[in-house]
Amino acid sequence: MSLLVVGSVALDDIESPSGARTGVLGGAACYFALAASYFVPVRAVGVVGDDFPKEHLDFLRARGIDVEGIYTSPGKTFRWGGRYRDSLNVRDTLFTELGVFDGFKPKLGDAHRASDFVFLANIHPALQLDVLGQVRSPMFNAMDTMNFWIEGTPAELKKTLGQVQCLIINDEEARQLTGEHNLVRAAAGIRELGPRIVVIKRGEHGALLFDEEGVFMAPAFPLEEVQDPTGAGDTFAGGFMGSLARERFVGSETLRRAMIFGSTLASFCVEEFGVDRMRTLEMGEIYARYSLFRSLTRF
Amino acid sequence: MSLLVVGSVALDDIESPSGARTGVLGGAACYFALAASYFVPVRAVGVVGDDFPKEHLDFLRARGIDVEGIYTSPGKTFRWGGRYRDSLNVRDTLFTELGVFDGFKPKLGDAHRASDFVFLANIHPALQLDVLGQVRSPMFNAMDTMNFWIEGTPAELKKTLGQVQCLIINDEEARQLTGEHNLVRAAAGIRELGPRIVVIKRGEHGALLFDEEGVFMAPAFPLEEVQDPTGAGDTFAGGFMGSLARERFVGSETLRRAMIFGSTLASFCVEEFGVDRMRTLEMGEIYARYSLFRSLTRF
Repeated sequence: MSLLVVGSVALDDIESPSGARTGVLGGAACYFALAASYFVPVRAVGVVGDDFPKEHLDFLRARGIDVEGIYTSPGKTFRWGGRYRDSLNVRDTLFTELGVFDGFKPKLGDAHRASDFVFLANIHPALQLDVLGQVRSPMFNAMDTMNFWIEGTPAELKKTLGQVQCLIINDEEARQLTGEHNLVRAAAGIRELGPRIVVIKRGEHGALLFDEEGVFMAPAFPLEEVQDPTGAGDTFAGGFMGSLARERFVGSETLRRAMIFGSTLASFCVEEFGVDRMRTLEMGEIYARYSLFRSLTRF
Repeated sequence: MSLLVVGSVALDDIESPSGARTGVLGGAACYFALAASYFVPVRAVGVVGDDFPKEHLDFLRARGIDVEGIYTSPGKTFRWGGRYRDSLNVRDTLFTELGVFDGFKPKLGDAHRASDFVFLANIHPALQLDVLGQVRSPMFNAMDTMNFWIEGTPAELKKTLGQVQCLIINDEEARQLTGEHNLVRAAAGIRELGPRIVVIKRGEHGALLFDEEGVFMAPAFPLEEVQDPTGAGDTFAGGFMGSLARERFVGSETLRRAMIFGSTLASFCVEEFGVDRMRTLEMGEIYARYSLFRSLTRF
């Protein structure tokens, strides 16, 4: 199975109570691709500026990720800076410099157009729809979005939602999109817009899956120390989609396992800054923690 | 097995987006006793004023609760008023009138002193310790507390914590008690103070159990509508302790089932105002929802 992700590639400045890092590899497409790469070959599509360090692409390639779709434009790479407060629950965005990401126009090559699984990370909904139109006949597609598009381009967002099978979104965005505070009702509202599968991410409180079978609740792994929550949501999505693509089937059972693999990968991601944990993480560690999830909820 | 609860009996004024009620039966001991009464005979100890409606005691009696330990003092019953905002997550306390609860001096009769399971609801830690001293040799005891005692009487609280086997507390209180934001570390800190079992309640995000076996996570049941969250925490504790008392054994397996019964009872509690759901709730409904918890987390 081939898994395609389209989204941002970035250089991040991150401050948390555990320390600070400058110019580290970031962006939704990178976090997603790195997590998914443990399950299936991944193709990443994005744009970087001519200031983008070659070593970052080398790292993605070393994880088996096809980076042919990450093209270079003259200018600066998308940069984002954020600072986490003591609780790690609250993040202040210090700056957002779109750079070449502002003119991002994903154009898929022939191989990419034949992808079986597609994830549209958080970009303009019209671009998401355009990418979806370029893929020939994917077996399964999913998307993310954010408050910026919910407020700014609601009509285009709804058009895109009408074309995807799965929305992966955080709790506050689900509430904002539907005007429903209750997440059960919010998920039902989203399903009426198109996606038959809705995944609602709740950070340290885990994630919820809503499908024809009802509700499934994946806990967040109880960690004693979190260094940096950046990218946890995209890493969750990468583990989720990667696991589904490896199983080659989207059904109640495979979706539940995918939720736990997503939670497992996200729990590793936050243990170190940026994507650093993915530099050392091995499949054996993933399986070991996946098994611990069983004992967390078994009764 | 006999289960004793000592705590407040109150008359509440409650406002939520779903409506308002005045002078309804409330108080930690009542919510706890009603939930636990589905599992074992419960003895409630508390104080009411001479304004307390007889019908409330009749209702408790009808649920098989021994109310001999609820004595009447000249004066007014403890009254509390609260208002929930739209999200139901935020509650504003409108008034607290302690009335006769201010002079509460629980004195256990002979039968009560022979109780096997004891729950010390949220009262002054010195009173909790005094009650514990009156019970001959309970098989299992547990307590709750609140920010007021954590701030105001830390030395007395620590003395009481040193004598109990289990603390049932909410997440913010666990953080305040230990100065640790991370709940895994907070639970470890609490266990060093005495209780070998720590239950941390997280409202709509479920509850965590920490014991020798590690961590267990009970989800909150996904409800489409919540009318009134008042008493959910005490109802959880009642289901938890009631289930344990019925099993006559406190171990890893019975604790996990108790966590799910606690979550089950709490999920019913919030469906109607005050204790109203307990007026109609039947054991069959409890078992049916308990089973649904399995499918919520099974993978």
